[in-house]
Amino acid sequence: MTNGTLIPTTAERDAMRVVTDHACDLHAQGKDIVFTAAIVKDGEIIARARNEVADTGDVSRHAEVVAMAKATAALGTRDLSGAILIASCQPCEMCLSTMRWARIDRVIFAAQQENTGDAFFRFPKLTIRDFHAACDGAFDWCGGLDEHRVAHIYAPGDAG
Amino acid sequence: MTNGTLIPTTAERDAMRVVTDHACDLHAQGKDIVFTAAIVKDGEIIARARNEVADTGDVSRHAEVVAMAKATAALGTRDLSGAILIASCQPCEMCLSTMRWARIDRVIFAAQQENTGDAFFRFPKLTIRDFHAACDGAFDWCGGLDEHRVAHIYAPGDAG
Repeated sequence: MTNGTLIPTTAERDAMRVVTDHACDLHAQGKDIVFTAAIVKDGEIIARARNEVADTGDVSRHAEVVAMAKATAALGTRDLSGAILIASCQPCEMCLSTMRWARIDRVIFAAQQENTGDAFFRFPKLTIRDFHAACDGAFDWCGGLDEHRVAHIYAPGDAG
Repeated sequence: MTNGTLIPTTAERDAMRVVTDHACDLHAQGKDIVFTAAIVKDGEIIARARNEVADTGDVSRHAEVVAMAKATAALGTRDLSGAILIASCQPCEMCLSTMRWARIDRVIFAAQQENTGDAFFRFPKLTIRDFHAACDGAFDWCGGLDEHRVAHIYAPGDAG
């Protein structure tokens, strides 16, 4: 059961399978902070990433931000118009804002805020619907795609 | 005339002078994207930065995010509890969220959203008061300190 303003394409569904596989692999390895993301453009994954906060000591290195930086480097432009952000968990406020700065207007995620609890968000009383409204619907989104595959990773009891 | 929930200390006022001087210097040099920031801890500036988006091609490298990364590197911990974020312009939604991930709960800025226009924000219908409320007031803020020193830099006509 998905929510949002868009219906994922086949390429986006395939990319989500890759992203959720990545998260499940890291979780199975016992990794501590397990978030993964990818950038799709023209039907292909052009960048993949995982959360690198612990590796870098930089709190801004969420999987989505790293994926966008990699896509930017790969394309040679920081204008990612036409690209799609795929994430294993609903992007936090920072990632959502970074997405907008990168001119990405389409985002698809698996685990949804209402099911993960608030630990992965810093302004938890704002929902993605609030952010959508606050920019006059400048992006489309879909939450809950393949959520069942990663729900065990982001269950509220595991937050920390 | 300042707004917000805190009254700046002398050390914070001194740091703002440094940050706004930095912005004015860059602007006088004809730089294109002129935003500056600093991190204060125990009354001293421990990190200073300017926007590095154009230099790095990474849209997340706003002055505030770079300043926090530098402070994290300087202190050897990504927990910046007790530090203060000083910025020449009101932090955008990305920077505000990054601040919260860094556990900074005190932010002071010069130019205010209501005076700069919306070009520097990606969810312009949300104000800092909305973000403050959305985390149950988990941070204190002051906007407008030394705003007159940088108002010419961030005037709506100059946005882009």
